Amino acid sequence: VFLRAKLRGLTVLGLSMASQSEKAESFRAMHRRGRILLLPNAWDVPSARIFENMGFEAVATTSAGVSVSLGYPDGEKVPKDEMLHVLRKICSRVQLPVSADIESGFGRTKEEFIDTVRGVIEAGAVGVNVEDVADFDAKTLLPVQVQVERIRAAKRYAEDSGVPIVINARTDAIRFNVEGEQKSFEEAVRRCRLYLEAGADCVYPMGLTTAEAVSSFVKEVQAPVNIMARRGAPKVRELEKMGVARLSLGPGPIYASMGLLKKISKELLEVGSYDSMLELAITYDELNSLARPGV
Amino acid sequence: VFLRAKLRGLTVLGLSMASQSEKAESFRAMHRRGRILLLPNAWDVPSARIFENMGFEAVATTSAGVSVSLGYPDGEKVPKDEMLHVLRKICSRVQLPVSADIESGFGRTKEEFIDTVRGVIEAGAVGVNVEDVADFDAKTLLPVQVQVERIRAAKRYAEDSGVPIVINARTDAIRFNVEGEQKSFEEAVRRCRLYLEAGADCVYPMGLTTAEAVSSFVKEVQAPVNIMARRGAPKVRELEKMGVARLSLGPGPIYASMGLLKKISKELLEVGSYDSMLELAITYDELNSLARPGV
Repeated sequence: VFLRAKLRGLTVLGLSMASQSEKAESFRAMHRRGRILLLPNAWDVPSARIFENMGFEAVATTSAGVSVSLGYPDGEKVPKDEMLHVLRKICSRVQLPVSADIESGFGRTKEEFIDTVRGVIEAGAVGVNVEDVADFDAKTLLPVQVQVERIRAAKRYAEDSGVPIVINARTDAIRFNVEGEQKSFEEAVRRCRLYLEAGADCVYPMGLTTAEAVSSFVKEVQAPVNIMARRGAPKVRELEKMGVARLSLGPGPIYASMGLLKKISKELLEVGSYDSMLELAITYDELNSLARPGV
Repeated sequence: VFLRAKLRGLTVLGLSMASQSEKAESFRAMHRRGRILLLPNAWDVPSARIFENMGFEAVATTSAGVSVSLGYPDGEKVPKDEMLHVLRKICSRVQLPVSADIESGFGRTKEEFIDTVRGVIEAGAVGVNVEDVADFDAKTLLPVQVQVERIRAAKRYAEDSGVPIVINARTDAIRFNVEGEQKSFEEAVRRCRLYLEAGADCVYPMGLTTAEAVSSFVKEVQAPVNIMARRGAPKVRELEKMGVARLSLGPGPIYASMGLLKKISKELLEVGSYDSMLELAITYDELNSLARPGV
């Protein structure tokens, strides 16, 4: 009985590893099709499960959402283990491929970065979003060569581990806008090309919003590009026409949820009614179903 | 230096205990005023902080919300320590009195119940909502005398501990409706009277909704009564006129948040736009501010 249980354990482990590897490849393929990949960002189990139930093909996390829901501001202030704990919960309740927002890797060296990637794979995720930030408070970028080496090492580590995760390499060159608009754009293009050569599957010029800039960027890099849905950004069909591979929502959904809580509070305190609480409400049974793994 | 640090530590501890005790008394007083106490139910740090920022006087937790956000269905399926961990986070980021939803006490014996109350006080809360459920799946009630003894013991324990928490004693007699509507109502009244005699500060007939039933119940018990905001329940002013002491929102806010995520998902997948994500959105800075203790 002991031996059988042990063998079964190994089989289960084998199957689950294979399935995580397949999930990674299937997630990668979603970045290279005619149509855009819509990638919503969750911060806990129920937000991830709602996205899964509604018909998305993959789910990502949002570092701002995960951090704040745990009581820490965004910018790697959350202890890495707490972030990984939530990621593990989400991966255990969701069947879809999950991509983890690991900010700038929770550590700047190659070794620390690989340790984070290892944690992400062990948690069950099949993708990472990684930034090239040196210091979140000072708003400085890592030397490009450091980031290139980190991406190359992560790529190699993931392949060796048997789970070839999808690497979305984000650059904050435009967001930090250190050298003016045109130079920042050029620096973002330069960095993203190097990240792609190092093994990134998709690049993400954070802060790029207008249709014109997005379109130019896609032409410059000729590879899968991630854009974030935000006020002023083009709609899905436009982005698709420009050749954008993936649209993520970033912290948009948690911004909206918190805004709704404000509206509910205001109505209750000022009017004494709770229509805005009831309008879109799901049921007790539906809420509970979100805690169980979906199909 | 070591001694000074140690003394400072004790002073801080002393101050923090006094302030928790004062907070408990101030929360208790909110149940015995002319006007109704509006008590919103949070499930994580940002939901609690939004309620605090919007001007409520106290915040409660929702067991369904806390459980599901941690990946467990409601009904004491969440490990007690995980529930207490979230409660501690909320209490550390919120200045207002916090009341903890501890379902049926995470254990049915007096000893287990007291252990849960101890955990709640250590987490920084100043109130509990406790149910008289024996078995959540079988939908059975505890013998009334067992619940009376648990409430009496909790009351004594809390007073001895220096943090005289507010006990909201909920009965599920009406919700489980074992003996028909009239008999269930009478059983709820009988139980709540005994819970009040045992030291409960407020009673909560779960499942009571219509204006007529609420009004009769308040007249029968002549003590602070908690009602939950739900479809069909009277509005704040009506409840106040009937003498209802406190209106909680239960899982209403998380039902609404999840419903909004469904709406955002549907719009993105079917229309390709994200207006419902932007309409009520808070900002990145506001989201991050929710992770820091408020004023």
